[in-house]
Amino acid sequence: MATEQALTELRALLGDRLTTGESHLAQHGQNESYYATALPDAVAFPESTEEVSEILRICHAHDCPVTAFAAASSLEGQHLPIKGGISLDMMRMNKLLAVNAEDLNCVVQPGMTREALNTELRATGLFFPIDPGANASIGGMAATRASGTMAVRYGTMRENVLALEAVMADGTIIRTGSQARKSSTGYDLTHLLVGSEGTLGIITELTLKLQGQPEAISAATCRFDSVEDAVNCVILTIQSGIPMARIELVNAMMVRGFNLHNGAGLPEKPHLFLEFQGSPNAVREQAGAFGEIAEEFGATGFAKAESTEARNRLWALRHGAHYANNALDPGKRTMATDVCVPISKLAEAVTWAETRTQELGITSTIVGHVGDGNFHCGLRVNPDNATELQTCKDFVNELNDRALALDGTVSGEHGIGIGKQAYMAREHGPALSYMRAIKTAYDPKNILNPGKLLPPGNM
Amino acid sequence: MATEQALTELRALLGDRLTTGESHLAQHGQNESYYATALPDAVAFPESTEEVSEILRICHAHDCPVTAFAAASSLEGQHLPIKGGISLDMMRMNKLLAVNAEDLNCVVQPGMTREALNTELRATGLFFPIDPGANASIGGMAATRASGTMAVRYGTMRENVLALEAVMADGTIIRTGSQARKSSTGYDLTHLLVGSEGTLGIITELTLKLQGQPEAISAATCRFDSVEDAVNCVILTIQSGIPMARIELVNAMMVRGFNLHNGAGLPEKPHLFLEFQGSPNAVREQAGAFGEIAEEFGATGFAKAESTEARNRLWALRHGAHYANNALDPGKRTMATDVCVPISKLAEAVTWAETRTQELGITSTIVGHVGDGNFHCGLRVNPDNATELQTCKDFVNELNDRALALDGTVSGEHGIGIGKQAYMAREHGPALSYMRAIKTAYDPKNILNPGKLLPPGNM
Repeated sequence: MATEQALTELRALLGDRLTTGESHLAQHGQNESYYATALPDAVAFPESTEEVSEILRICHAHDCPVTAFAAASSLEGQHLPIKGGISLDMMRMNKLLAVNAEDLNCVVQPGMTREALNTELRATGLFFPIDPGANASIGGMAATRASGTMAVRYGTMRENVLALEAVMADGTIIRTGSQARKSSTGYDLTHLLVGSEGTLGIITELTLKLQGQPEAISAATCRFDSVEDAVNCVILTIQSGIPMARIELVNAMMVRGFNLHNGAGLPEKPHLFLEFQGSPNAVREQAGAFGEIAEEFGATGFAKAESTEARNRLWALRHGAHYANNALDPGKRTMATDVCVPISKLAEAVTWAETRTQELGITSTIVGHVGDGNFHCGLRVNPDNATELQTCKDFVNELNDRALALDGTVSGEHGIGIGKQAYMAREHGPALSYMRAIKTAYDPKNILNPGKLLPPGNM
Repeated sequence: MATEQALTELRALLGDRLTTGESHLAQHGQNESYYATALPDAVAFPESTEEVSEILRICHAHDCPVTAFAAASSLEGQHLPIKGGISLDMMRMNKLLAVNAEDLNCVVQPGMTREALNTELRATGLFFPIDPGANASIGGMAATRASGTMAVRYGTMRENVLALEAVMADGTIIRTGSQARKSSTGYDLTHLLVGSEGTLGIITELTLKLQGQPEAISAATCRFDSVEDAVNCVILTIQSGIPMARIELVNAMMVRGFNLHNGAGLPEKPHLFLEFQGSPNAVREQAGAFGEIAEEFGATGFAKAESTEARNRLWALRHGAHYANNALDPGKRTMATDVCVPISKLAEAVTWAETRTQELGITSTIVGHVGDGNFHCGLRVNPDNATELQTCKDFVNELNDRALALDGTVSGEHGIGIGKQAYMAREHGPALSYMRAIKTAYDPKNILNPGKLLPPGNM
């Protein structure tokens, strides 16, 4: 068999860094979402770009699927090797290769996690602002075009990856971009690879923009009588141009999760979690301007978190939302939605989602990077209960269609993976075939993360 | 002949909006740079996306080249129909289709110019910040991934185009992106088309991010004893995180041009032109912080421009640099360089460029969007003098190679067009063939702006 032949050659290349051990296969076939386990035939642990190139050369020769794996925190099953083949575990390529402090950038390997990166950066006075809840790998974050709580201020991975090194399907190593802040020299392959979910190439090195640590940071929470009030407060804040560093919605059900899981002791009402960054004056100005708007929408219970410890506690709560969700209907799994709509449509979308899940009897939290118009329902579902699963899927379907009708997108940051392929044609129409054309040109044998991102169709 | 057949069908479609009149052909074959005139076989004036689609369908059927044309301000000959065929004049598609003030975006047709857009936006309290010197068309700015003086604060066209409508080689109309601020749904075709110089598709509609007009704006100039001092001041300013709205270098020779052409009456020394934007407090804070840094590098002659009129005069001077250049060796033409380097390497690159042009006896200005690491030499050259032309080309070649050696790029904002194709392989290496693969997949007959961006090679 072709895969057998590939494994033989890979074993010669990697020795015991190619494994078919059951525990390794199992670990690489799991996911944090509701998708079924999918085992690879083997797991490879490359330690250099050259090894990744050799691995792809071998797999390409033998039509053996290759699915990149790192922190495994993706929520649409992106790292699951659903067609078998090799799980390419990038976690040994986890070094910070350079910090170019004068140019406000750094060069990292894809297996480094964002927390490890920021720990290493601490002494430089710089930080990397993109923070999905999980301690994701930088390579995975680029591959899914991740964002998170600070995207409202600093943009997503789209705006923060300056340059890439990647290994293409046949093993060719390419470099895209440079350390210059901008360029007009040809097709933008950096942005093509960011968000391609490992289907066009394997990212082996990233140059990232960094930000100076702000002089002053102040966080706060406040609560509202309804998600509609909370979201309308957000809309006016953004429209007023207040440069929020973070502005996050959590609905009453999510607060219940925080209370159960974290002992947060918060009133079970919709909250906004906020952060202001800048000079001490700017932070005061921003907080004052926000406070005036919040008052208009009946905000109460303002609580500041100014010390580093208090802020860390606040954001650890928010970042742990996925886990706090598990406290809400124990034994079930979480189906996460990820629509993003124009901010003027956000109140309509969020209030519809909350009302509709309640009508359907689905336990669902809502958390949102609402400054971007992006929010997540965390639907608790027993995937073995076909009726319940269908109810949840129908809800998600309706939510996604509504987002598209509002000229939004079905995914603000989680990506397509397995779960959202059905929406690709609906969201992109004729443009979808121009995505397929790139896949066909770059990976004619379809060995790179097959079965992901693009829906089945003419390849 | 195939083109004849295309013209017959196009005439049936467009009537007198297809012309072969000599003055039209001549107008569409000119450029502001030093490239030779290149006449199209005919000029088409579409008035809708559907007409563009029909035109491309016809041209595709008959292998007839199509080169988009609008404000004709491109500096690398992007709009020149060097293989003949149709010049597709987009200037009748020049409407502002929608202002979504609540979502801080607008929808425009490609033939609208940036000045016309900002005039129409004035009453909304919003503005579009990307400003190359010329009054370029928005479609052309997207096609060349333009930027300009405010990119240091607001990014380039790359960061400011949210969504596109485009007509592909065979006439297929696609839409990329949405009005959501971010998305993770598949390959980023928006960024692929931005910067593709009309070689992958014709942009027929753009959704642009807008910014709120700042509460306070203050501009200023100051001068230095050397470009090195001026650039080192810029480097420290950027590294300090001062959110400059504009920070522009002009060298002594450029000031001489302003004096000759505009009667500016400025001392002929290197200057920085600055702008601060924000709340009145923020502007004061920024100006104060900049002033302290500038003093360290010996800045003198601080002159504020606070009224709208004074600021407009200041930036009209800067934006007219290309024309003021013409005052410096009258009768010659301008060859403009466009390297962009990591900011830590900027002083090295700029001082080398100034010294080297002086050694070679080339009259050359230097202006720079130095906050991004991007600067332009404006070499005055007589293209009919082979020796002089070669001296200039050799200098440009060496400057570009130096930029690449510093991990920069040969073009920060002008693009490749005709003039920079020789650097594509040097800058991109093996990645170049992955650009070619997209061109081949999207435009197999090579009818879209043939002879541009990609160097000759296997198509």
